[in-house]
Amino acid sequence: MSTPKTMANTSGEFGRITRFFKPLAAGFAGARGLRDDAAVFGVPEGRELVVTTDAMVAGVHFFPDDAPGDIAAKLMRSNLSDLAAMGAEPLAYTLVTALPRGLPDSWLEAFAAGLGADQQQFGIALAGGDSVSTTGPVTLSVTAFGLVPAGRALPRWGGRPGDRVFVTGTIGDAALGLEIAYGRLDLPDEEASGHLLRRLRRPDPRTGIGPRLIGLAGGALDVSDGLVADLGHLCEESGCAALLQAEAVPLSDAARGAIDGDPARLALAITGGDDYELLFSAPESARDALAALSAAGGVAITEIGSLLPGEAGTVTVLDGTGAALPLTRRGWDHF
Amino acid sequence: MSTPKTMANTSGEFGRITRFFKPLAAGFAGARGLRDDAAVFGVPEGRELVVTTDAMVAGVHFFPDDAPGDIAAKLMRSNLSDLAAMGAEPLAYTLVTALPRGLPDSWLEAFAAGLGADQQQFGIALAGGDSVSTTGPVTLSVTAFGLVPAGRALPRWGGRPGDRVFVTGTIGDAALGLEIAYGRLDLPDEEASGHLLRRLRRPDPRTGIGPRLIGLAGGALDVSDGLVADLGHLCEESGCAALLQAEAVPLSDAARGAIDGDPARLALAITGGDDYELLFSAPESARDALAALSAAGGVAITEIGSLLPGEAGTVTVLDGTGAALPLTRRGWDHF
Repeated sequence: MSTPKTMANTSGEFGRITRFFKPLAAGFAGARGLRDDAAVFGVPEGRELVVTTDAMVAGVHFFPDDAPGDIAAKLMRSNLSDLAAMGAEPLAYTLVTALPRGLPDSWLEAFAAGLGADQQQFGIALAGGDSVSTTGPVTLSVTAFGLVPAGRALPRWGGRPGDRVFVTGTIGDAALGLEIAYGRLDLPDEEASGHLLRRLRRPDPRTGIGPRLIGLAGGALDVSDGLVADLGHLCEESGCAALLQAEAVPLSDAARGAIDGDPARLALAITGGDDYELLFSAPESARDALAALSAAGGVAITEIGSLLPGEAGTVTVLDGTGAALPLTRRGWDHF
Repeated sequence: MSTPKTMANTSGEFGRITRFFKPLAAGFAGARGLRDDAAVFGVPEGRELVVTTDAMVAGVHFFPDDAPGDIAAKLMRSNLSDLAAMGAEPLAYTLVTALPRGLPDSWLEAFAAGLGADQQQFGIALAGGDSVSTTGPVTLSVTAFGLVPAGRALPRWGGRPGDRVFVTGTIGDAALGLEIAYGRLDLPDEEASGHLLRRLRRPDPRTGIGPRLIGLAGGALDVSDGLVADLGHLCEESGCAALLQAEAVPLSDAARGAIDGDPARLALAITGGDDYELLFSAPESARDALAALSAAGGVAITEIGSLLPGEAGTVTVLDGTGAALPLTRRGWDHF
């Protein structure tokens, strides 16, 4: 039996918090300088708080030797993507770290620097958290807070038969990037390879688009489990089915080159997950507004299919000839 | 190198969430039935949100073979104690579980039942969370949300020289209970032994007292690191020193019997931590109101010392003769 308490307590939680985390909380008054038992903040009248949590474990969600700054970015951005999918503006976050005793301060320093860079980029600040030791792998979680106009958060279940299905950015980069990371895919084009790996390690949460979808989108979520699986979630919660046009799915040049006409790789792209793009339904009448939003934000918004009556959660993927594409799986199940 | 994604995904996150966690979220509309990417809730006008996080790792913060219901209670109650220390009323919580793949459903069922029982007892509900797998020990964290009147949260730094120091309940039960759990302490009195173990495993967060300390207490926090260490934290943040009368520290009959006049065990009681009692300063003029609050709540509130000018954070512990008690440590450092 291992030994609660006596194992846990030698190497200076307070010192590490002061050195690495207090600076991250300096910009948010509600953090109380990390000097109190809890954070305290208000929510402006007419707005609601959106709260989401994502956890990551070394060896499960990232490679143990990934750069700490990349790990920080992925942790932060997967949470920011959830806020965006709800239509929320980022406000603050709390952080829980469970770290092996021998982890050097340099790791934590680079991790905190990654968090700090993303705080700047996305306008969010550290509100509080907890730091514990573990005998297992590095285990991290962020709980992110955002604000939406009261009653207007974008639900997964807002899809209606007849709605069109849209997705931001490009799909499949992260799944193909993971193939490269495993050495199962080798691209001659270094720039393309770098793009796919970057999209795996540092996704681009659509925080600029999400809040502007309020009033336009019906059902919305972010693509983390895989495009087909997540469209299935939207349909399941909305009580309808969907048609997805595989040829319409937006691909980066790098992904298009990597797929190179191989149906298995195309299937991987649309089921692989970790895209952190926004997937949403909207009536046809929203097309022009969405095109304007896309142009203003410099982020593609692409129509990829439609919702229709049918068994809740059923997604049919059509190839370029209109034939159903057989898929051996829809996406990932995280447990 | 281990294998992100492919390791993580076989045994049904969605099924476990539906079975064990959705029922816990049924009482809180903001949880959106755990069907969305995030929770959404408002904060009433004139109130602020209090947010606190505590994490626990098997083998570090609890014994791996502890009853899952006890683990749930300790996780929940350590967070509720932080809310109470801020003067906040419990509202909701999010939960992150990182669980080994082989952990049986029966463990999770008993854990969820423990959470459910505490939800009933303390008036709090599940708002959301994340479930991931880990190759390491069971790792759990709760982020708890509470409400306080705006601008009135109890700060650690509200102590003033001349204030008296008070503590709720009894001190040292958990530290002595841990000695029993390790087999380093064997009490002939089974009832006393059971009491100390229960206080270790199922602390009693003072959620009824905390919010009523607003307007009475100056500085406040909960005793988790140890009475002496936490009084040191209060003093450090308040810029003053403290005298602590060891003989005045409230002990349960079980703790008094276990200490049995042994100075080392008394020292353990006042430095051991995990008490989850409220420690706060208040002016002498608050004594009567505190006595009435104690009587109304059925929880002891005991005066144990005073704040005085001096080097910030210095705590002098006096024995019954007024001599300084030497302590080899003040409390635990969790990192």
